[in-house]
Amino acid sequence: MKMSKMGIHPEKSAPKDADTINHRLLVQAGFVRQLMAGVYTYLPFGLIVLRKIEAIIREEMDAIGGEEILMPMLQPAEIWKTSGGWDHIDVLFKIKSRTEKDYALGQSQEEVVTTVMKEFIRSYRDLPRAIYHIQWKFRDELRAKSGILRGREFLMKDMYSFHENQEDFEKYYEVAKKAYLRLFSRLGLTSKVTEASGGGFSEKISYEFEVLTDAGEANILYCDSCEFCVNVDDISKYKVGDRCPKCDKDDLKSATASEVGNVFDLGRKYTEAFDLSYTDQNGEKKYPIMGCYGIGVTRTMGVIVEKFHDDKGIVWPKNIAPFLVHLVDIQQQEEAEKIYNSLKQDGIDVLWDDRELSAGAKFADSDLIGCPIRVVVSARSISAGGVEVKMRNETESKIIPIDKLSSFVKNV
Amino acid sequence: MKMSKMGIHPEKSAPKDADTINHRLLVQAGFVRQLMAGVYTYLPFGLIVLRKIEAIIREEMDAIGGEEILMPMLQPAEIWKTSGGWDHIDVLFKIKSRTEKDYALGQSQEEVVTTVMKEFIRSYRDLPRAIYHIQWKFRDELRAKSGILRGREFLMKDMYSFHENQEDFEKYYEVAKKAYLRLFSRLGLTSKVTEASGGGFSEKISYEFEVLTDAGEANILYCDSCEFCVNVDDISKYKVGDRCPKCDKDDLKSATASEVGNVFDLGRKYTEAFDLSYTDQNGEKKYPIMGCYGIGVTRTMGVIVEKFHDDKGIVWPKNIAPFLVHLVDIQQQEEAEKIYNSLKQDGIDVLWDDRELSAGAKFADSDLIGCPIRVVVSARSISAGGVEVKMRNETESKIIPIDKLSSFVKNV
Repeated sequence: MKMSKMGIHPEKSAPKDADTINHRLLVQAGFVRQLMAGVYTYLPFGLIVLRKIEAIIREEMDAIGGEEILMPMLQPAEIWKTSGGWDHIDVLFKIKSRTEKDYALGQSQEEVVTTVMKEFIRSYRDLPRAIYHIQWKFRDELRAKSGILRGREFLMKDMYSFHENQEDFEKYYEVAKKAYLRLFSRLGLTSKVTEASGGGFSEKISYEFEVLTDAGEANILYCDSCEFCVNVDDISKYKVGDRCPKCDKDDLKSATASEVGNVFDLGRKYTEAFDLSYTDQNGEKKYPIMGCYGIGVTRTMGVIVEKFHDDKGIVWPKNIAPFLVHLVDIQQQEEAEKIYNSLKQDGIDVLWDDRELSAGAKFADSDLIGCPIRVVVSARSISAGGVEVKMRNETESKIIPIDKLSSFVKNV
Repeated sequence: MKMSKMGIHPEKSAPKDADTINHRLLVQAGFVRQLMAGVYTYLPFGLIVLRKIEAIIREEMDAIGGEEILMPMLQPAEIWKTSGGWDHIDVLFKIKSRTEKDYALGQSQEEVVTTVMKEFIRSYRDLPRAIYHIQWKFRDELRAKSGILRGREFLMKDMYSFHENQEDFEKYYEVAKKAYLRLFSRLGLTSKVTEASGGGFSEKISYEFEVLTDAGEANILYCDSCEFCVNVDDISKYKVGDRCPKCDKDDLKSATASEVGNVFDLGRKYTEAFDLSYTDQNGEKKYPIMGCYGIGVTRTMGVIVEKFHDDKGIVWPKNIAPFLVHLVDIQQQEEAEKIYNSLKQDGIDVLWDDRELSAGAKFADSDLIGCPIRVVVSARSISAGGVEVKMRNETESKIIPIDKLSSFVKNV
């Protein structure tokens, strides 16, 4: 993308109303704009990052047998009355139509997915199943703060699984957990899983996926050698220095963390309420056990900015950066155009700052936007034998010959 | 995709409440499910088609300089009061929050796009601009019928352009018109454009893009030699057999058609209301002229089904079919698996009916789903020298050697 062609570009000054780093940097660098508290427009850079996060989540959900659908946001009140959510979920947005019909805006999709799947799950042969979608959700929050960490309108991936019994759900949860740990790692994040009170299936289990970050709102104890963690804000039987009860290989450390995903054991609450039943091997009518697996997509984007930034701007992890390369030319338009075209031909995402601005202004914008690799082409770099390459998360730069640039970039 | 792995599959019987072909076939073939009138879940096949239509639209909007963003659906009442829509748009869904704040659900995005762009358009140097997004919209319809043709929740691409003057808007409209005609053609549709009362810029102009189809709700006169058409349901000065007033090469014919896109000249209504102004070359404050360019994405999907089907099912145009190839094996699992893997390796979208069903049931589902190329591998086809290939829109089949299948498919 050529920056001279963009009508939407980074700002010079930070927004006055930003209460968090993600809000300030995402606005200043031109990724989002706040329409009202908790509701954002995603500008071109922001939309690219969102789509890259989505794509990684989609690949991992597909890899564990998830079937992707897209459920609607506008929903009839009846299904929320069936589940009981209509009267008990205070963040549920309610709408009255011109004809006095009541609707709700989806804040979760258990009601819709059971309505859809009761047609397709009839026999034990139809189980297990995992259905997911990536869709915007709505919550009537009393106060929406913290940028895109907690929105009134936000993007989520939610998957729902259906099982013959508790053991099968637990088996699939282990598969899903591995997928979650893998996808957060692909997003550049180290995640840990809170394990519930443990053992036995007598009580409903829920798991939280926490990302270690100084900006996190939760205090956790975690193990470096496995994915174990506990939220110490809840009642905890563990303390710093205890041996990890899961892997027994390391001592527990303390840290702050942000929740980016969760899993709930829904039991038969929704399958019974919506009469989603199946016939088991003995011909008996049974209700499946249901699991729910969420990831806040926009929230994860915000957590990544909270974790990866410095005083100059965002430092995007490679896999979800809006562009891998930020090409900056200092009065070397012609040479830069050749490099730009050649990188693009090699399938590399590249942003070219071809505007008529000072080197200093271009460097400041490049740091603000936060692409992993900055490539500068200037008279000086050319006389030194190529282009000046600097990683966003390093301070030293080096000269790379132009004909070696593509292969260098691909191996970063 | 292997059909044996799919939990969501075509139905045997048509839905009882379907009042249109698109509703009946899209449900029966497993593309959508109705949650309530005018609100649908997109099942895996439906989502694939929707994404393919989106991708074609996106390519064509990018090619004419459109910058893609994503504007929110939940919107503050204030912006709708500023534009006057709050009191005058009867299909606007209104929501009251727990804290008694009023919100609207986006049914169009002029209010938001001007709010966002007033920051980026300040000088004549910032013009012209074209900003678009592909987003779900909501309309409080008294009655929602006709499947996905007219929804309460529906997907639209809407682009907004900003110009120094009327001439520049008209110039850009000509560019956008060509992009629209090209993209509808890529979707397999022949589109025509209603031309407004013509000449002079004294009155606000709007254009409709109509697709010729027997199931269309509009009666039009059109020219075969150019894109001219008029809606004869409006007052028209033309009649069948008149010479085309645009190209003068052909006589006007009559047909029925469906509207799939539209363009509005918004003048300065929104730029003035939201004080989106720019400084012209003489240093004077001016308000840009604004254009709006819509395409109903879900509606277009419905129109395509209304146009391309027969009594056995849907007949998808090649570019947006859920899969290019529907591979059907008749007790030739092993041979089919080889073909499936080889087609996939060659980058071809293929659906493999690997279920344990009769040949007749598989053929019926294949016709219902409507992929362009059916490939049958059976003992008979193998002894005849390969696989039996039939186009969905033809009746004759032919034998193609297996090692020639990929290149045959790629050249269809």
